[in-house]
Amino acid sequence: MAKFEKLINKLTSLRSGKMYNNDFFLTWEKTDDEIQAVWTVADALRNLRERNISTKVFDSGLGISLFRDNSTRTRFSFASACNLLGLEVQDLDEKKSQVAHGETVRETANMISFMADVIGIRDDMYIGKGNAYMHEVADSVEAGYRDGILEQRPTLVNLQCDIDHPTQCMADALHVIHEFGGIEKLKGKKLAMTWAYSPSYGKPLSVPQGVIGLFTRLGLDVTLAYPEGYEVMPDVVEVAKKQAFAAGSNFKITNDMKDAFKDADIVYPKSWAPFAAMEKRTVLYGNGDDAGIKALEKELLAQNATHKDWACTEDMMKLTKNGRALYLHCLPADITGVSCEEGEVDGSVFDRYRTPLYKQASYKPYVIAAMIMLEKFPNPAEILVKLNERGTKRIFD
Amino acid sequence: MAKFEKLINKLTSLRSGKMYNNDFFLTWEKTDDEIQAVWTVADALRNLRERNISTKVFDSGLGISLFRDNSTRTRFSFASACNLLGLEVQDLDEKKSQVAHGETVRETANMISFMADVIGIRDDMYIGKGNAYMHEVADSVEAGYRDGILEQRPTLVNLQCDIDHPTQCMADALHVIHEFGGIEKLKGKKLAMTWAYSPSYGKPLSVPQGVIGLFTRLGLDVTLAYPEGYEVMPDVVEVAKKQAFAAGSNFKITNDMKDAFKDADIVYPKSWAPFAAMEKRTVLYGNGDDAGIKALEKELLAQNATHKDWACTEDMMKLTKNGRALYLHCLPADITGVSCEEGEVDGSVFDRYRTPLYKQASYKPYVIAAMIMLEKFPNPAEILVKLNERGTKRIFD
Amino acid sequence: MAKFEKLINKLTSLRSGKMYNNDFFLTWEKTDDEIQAVWTVADALRNLRERNISTKVFDSGLGISLFRDNSTRTRFSFASACNLLGLEVQDLDEKKSQVAHGETVRETANMISFMADVIGIRDDMYIGKGNAYMHEVADSVEAGYRDGILEQRPTLVNLQCDIDHPTQCMADALHVIHEFGGIEKLKGKKLAMTWAYSPSYGKPLSVPQGVIGLFTRLGLDVTLAYPEGYEVMPDVVEVAKKQAFAAGSNFKITNDMKDAFKDADIVYPKSWAPFAAMEKRTVLYGNGDDAGIKALEKELLAQNATHKDWACTEDMMKLTKNGRALYLHCLPADITGVSCEEGEVDGSVFDRYRTPLYKQASYKPYVIAAMIMLEKFPNPAEILVKLNERGTKRIFD
Repeated sequence: MAKFEKLINKLTSLRSGKMYNNDFFLTWEKTDDEIQAVWTVADALRNLRERNISTKVFDSGLGISLFRDNSTRTRFSFASACNLLGLEVQDLDEKKSQVAHGETVRETANMISFMADVIGIRDDMYIGKGNAYMHEVADSVEAGYRDGILEQRPTLVNLQCDIDHPTQCMADALHVIHEFGGIEKLKGKKLAMTWAYSPSYGKPLSVPQGVIGLFTRLGLDVTLAYPEGYEVMPDVVEVAKKQAFAAGSNFKITNDMKDAFKDADIVYPKSWAPFAAMEKRTVLYGNGDDAGIKALEKELLAQNATHKDWACTEDMMKLTKNGRALYLHCLPADITGVSCEEGEVDGSVFDRYRTPLYKQASYKPYVIAAMIMLEKFPNPAEILVKLNERGTKRIFD
Repeated sequence: MAKFEKLINKLTSLRSGKMYNNDFFLTWEKTDDEIQAVWTVADALRNLRERNISTKVFDSGLGISLFRDNSTRTRFSFASACNLLGLEVQDLDEKKSQVAHGETVRETANMISFMADVIGIRDDMYIGKGNAYMHEVADSVEAGYRDGILEQRPTLVNLQCDIDHPTQCMADALHVIHEFGGIEKLKGKKLAMTWAYSPSYGKPLSVPQGVIGLFTRLGLDVTLAYPEGYEVMPDVVEVAKKQAFAAGSNFKITNDMKDAFKDADIVYPKSWAPFAAMEKRTVLYGNGDDAGIKALEKELLAQNATHKDWACTEDMMKLTKNGRALYLHCLPADITGVSCEEGEVDGSVFDRYRTPLYKQASYKPYVIAAMIMLEKFPNPAEILVKLNERGTKRIFD
Repeated sequence: MAKFEKLINKLTSLRSGKMYNNDFFLTWEKTDDEIQAVWTVADALRNLRERNISTKVFDSGLGISLFRDNSTRTRFSFASACNLLGLEVQDLDEKKSQVAHGETVRETANMISFMADVIGIRDDMYIGKGNAYMHEVADSVEAGYRDGILEQRPTLVNLQCDIDHPTQCMADALHVIHEFGGIEKLKGKKLAMTWAYSPSYGKPLSVPQGVIGLFTRLGLDVTLAYPEGYEVMPDVVEVAKKQAFAAGSNFKITNDMKDAFKDADIVYPKSWAPFAAMEKRTVLYGNGDDAGIKALEKELLAQNATHKDWACTEDMMKLTKNGRALYLHCLPADITGVSCEEGEVDGSVFDRYRTPLYKQASYKPYVIAAMIMLEKFPNPAEILVKLNERGTKRIFD
C-alpha cells in the first residue's frame, strides 16, 4: 500500500494530460513526464493486480489488434493488457476480412471502430510503411470521431513499426529501472546496443532504433555497435544524439563490438538487417520482383556470415562491468547450440540470464495497459485511487 | 434522458413479445411492430452507451459466429453487439473444427451451444442453401432445448443469407429514418434500388432483395432497376409487391437506371449477380464442375461488361431530387478510379457521401444487439429502464 | 436449493486440497476424493447456472488454449468453461506465432502466461509426446512462478493427450452416474469398451485408455474388446487391472465383441489405432518418412477393413442387458449409412440414443470448469456457497 501511494504521488506530479485521447507512436514524440507516467501507471496496475484488486475500467468495449507479422509475445501482451482493463480483443485478420477487396484504410479503420476504444497495430516489415500506415489509421478514426461517425475516439498503440518498438523498449527500460533500483540510478550507466550474428536475415530495426531513441534520454551512456554496412535509420541516430546532448550523457557509434561491451552495465546484443538493404527490399516487394528479393536475401545472408564473431559469448561478457552486465533481449534469441548452430548468444550466457530475461518480458502487458489508460482517461491517478478504494477482487474470495 | 423515455414509451406501445426465444431470419416474416421494436431498442441501446451507461445484460454466455464467407464489417458488428450485451464471441471456424469429419448439422449445432445464448450465421454463397442451413441449425438447437440437452435456447440472427441481409437492411433503414427525421416522414419518398456495374461478378442478391423486402412496407415508392437478365428471386419480388400494396405505396421494376434515379430521394446503386446464374452456379458447385464454373464466370463478366453505363455518376445524381438524393451502399463499394477503373460509383459522388455512408454502417452493431435483446428478453422495455436505473458506467469514472 | 446444499455437503466431505495450484493430467493420478470433487463441483456449477446465478469467479484473467489437432467440441467446451468462470480465452495458434522460430517450450510457456490463470492443451497425435509436452509446459510455468516471473501459477488442464482424455472420460462418467441414479448404483454394472470399425484410420487411443483407466475404479466390471493387433498402451492396461482389483471389480480383455456386449449395461464402441502402429508412425513422422507413412496408412486401412463386423449393429445391441444398454460415444461417430458406408454404429442405433449422447457431451464444459475451480481455489465449497449468496444474475432481470 505504501508503494501504491508513492506511485500515485509520483503520477500526480507528472504532466501527462496531453496523452488523453491521443496515440502512442514513438517514444521520442513524448515528453519525459509522459514517458515516466507510463512506467508509473504500469507499476501501479501491477501493484493492484498483485494485491488481487481488479483494474477493470471498461465494462464493455473492444481492443482491436492488427498484426501484419507473426507474433506470440506482443499478441499475448496486447490481449493481456486489454483483458486487464476490461476490453475484449477482436483481431482484424486480414485474410478473413474483405480488406483486400477495394476497401480503403480510411473505410476499414472506421468500420471496425464503432465499439473500439483502442487499436493496436504491428506493422514492421517495410521501411517507410509501418509507421505511415498507423498514422493513416489514427487520422481516419480521428476524422470519424470528429464527423460524428464514431461515438468515441479509438486511440492507437504502436505494437512495432519500421521506426520504433515502443511497447518493447518501454518494457525493457522499466525492467532496467527496477533492476538498478530507480531511474535516478541510471545516470552514467553504460548501455551497449550491439548488432549480433544470426543465421536468419531481415530482422526488424525497430528494437535497436527504439533502444537508442529511449535510453539516451535517461542519462545513460549509450553505444550503438554494428559491423560496417549495418547502419540504422539516420533520423533515429539524430534523435539519439540530440537526446544524449540534452541529458548530458554520451551517445556514440562504433564498429567494434568489444569497445561497446567494455565496462558496459547493460548489453543488448541482437541481430538486425541493414537499413539500406531493407529500403531496397521494400522497393523490390513493391515491384513484385521475386528474383530480386531472392538475390538480395542471398547477398544479405552472405554478408551476415562474415560477422559470426559478433556474438555475445562468455568471453565478451567478461569485458563488461565486473563481467556481470545485465543482458537484455526482446526474445526469441538465436542461441548458439540451442536454436541454431551459431547465433547471437552463447547458450550458457542466455541460461544464466533466463530469469531476468523473462522478467523483462513480463513488463510489456503492463506497459501496454498503462499506455491505454493514459490515452483513455484524463485523470489516471484519480482512477487508480478509485480502483484501489473500490477493491473489487480480481479472483473472487 | 427525455429521448430515452420517449424510446421506452414507443417500445412499450409495440407488440414484440413473439420475438422472445425466437430467431430472426427475414424481415418480412416479422410484423411492423416487431420491426419497429428492433429500431427502438437499437436507438435506446445507443442512447445508453452515449451516456456512458453499461448495457451489459449477460454476466457470462457465448455468442457463436459462423461465417461461411469473408467478412469485416458484419464480423465486427456481431462482435460489437455481443460485447455490448456481455456475450463473448466464439467463432466456429470450420477449418479448425471437425465439422467436415462426419458431423451432422444437428450434432454440431448442439455441440457448440451448451453455453450459447445467440448464434449468428453468414451463409450467402449458394442460392437455396444459406437460409435453409440457418433453419436447420435453429431447428436443431430448438430440439436440443426441448429434449433437455441445452439449458437455454440459443436464438439465431441471420447475418446474411441467400434471400435477405436483415441486419444490413435494418441498419440501412434506421439510417434513412434518422436522416429524414422519423419513420412517418418516409411516406411517399422515392427509393431507387438499382443494379450497378462492377468488374467483379457474383455479388450476393441479399442486399437488393432485402431492400425491396423492407422499404416497400415503410410507405416509400420503391423502384428496382437492373439491366435485362439481372432478375432477383421472384418470391421476393412478390413480397415487395404485396407489401407495397398493403402500405399504399408503389413498387415497380424497370430496366432503365435513369428512370429509377429520376426524382429519387434515396438511391442504392449496387452490383449483384443474376439470380438465374447463381442458381446455375449452385448446381455446378454441387457437381464439382470446375470447367463449368469457369465458363460461367467468363460469361457473367462479359455480360457485366456490356452494362458499364450502369454507374452512379455525377450526371446520374443530378437526376435525383434536387440533385441531392441520399446515396446508400452496404460497403465496400467499387469506386471508379479508386478501387477499380470503372465501377459502381464515381469517386467524387462517393466522397461527398462518405460521412453519411459510414454513419449508415454504424447502426449495424446496434441493430444486431437489438435483435438479440428482443430474442432473449420477454420484457425489453423493462430491462432497458432497469439498465438506466442501475447506471453502471461503461467506462469507469 | 436442496440439491445445491447436498452437493456442498458432499464436497465438504471430500479431501481435494491437493488439487489447488496443481494440474490435471491423468485421472488415475488423482485420488477417489479428487475425482468425486470434480463431479460434485461440476454439478454445483450447473445447478447455479440453471438457477440463473453467475459463477464468475474471475473479474479478469486469461485461459490459454493450445490445440495441436482440429477440434470442435473440446474447443467450445474449454471456451465455455472459461467464460462460465470469467476467464477470456486466448488461443495460441502456432501458425500465427513465432513458436517455430527458435523459441523453446519453456520460453513460450512463460511468454503467454503473464496473465494466464489456466492453460488447456490438446496434443494427442504422437505416442509418447503429448503428455510429455504438457508436463514440460507445466514445469516451465511452475518454475516461472517460483522464480518470480509469473505473478500467479497457471495450472494445466489436459484436453486430450496420447495417454488419457480426462475431460471426455470424466464427462462420460458423470453422464453415466446421472443416468444410473448415483455413483453407488454403478457397482457391478457391466461396461463394454470395444473397438469398432471405421473407414478412417489412426484415431487416438486416449478415449479407450481413459475409459478403462477411469471406470475400473468405480466398481464396474469393465471389458475391453478389440480384434487382435489393436492393443492399447500396456501401462494403462496395468492401471486398469490394479484399479479393478482395488475396487473389487473385474477387468478383462477379449478379442470377441459379442462377449463384451453380452449383458452389458453400458457399451462404448469406438474405433482406434493399434498402439504399436501409432508408435511406428511417431517414428516415421520424426524421420519425415512420407513414403513410410503412406505405406503404413495403407496397411492400417487394409487391416481395419478385415474387421468390418466390429460394428454396433441392432443385432449386437440385442445382446446387451434387456437389449437396452446405455450407448456411449465421444462423438463424432462414424455412422453406417449416414457419415460413411460402413462404420462404428448403425444409423438406427445412433438415432435412438441421440438425446443421451448429446447430454453426455453437455457435461464436458462443466467438468472442465470444475477442474479449473479445484485448481485455482483452496476452498471451492466455500466459494460456491458465496456465489450462491452473492446471487448475481447470469442474465439480467
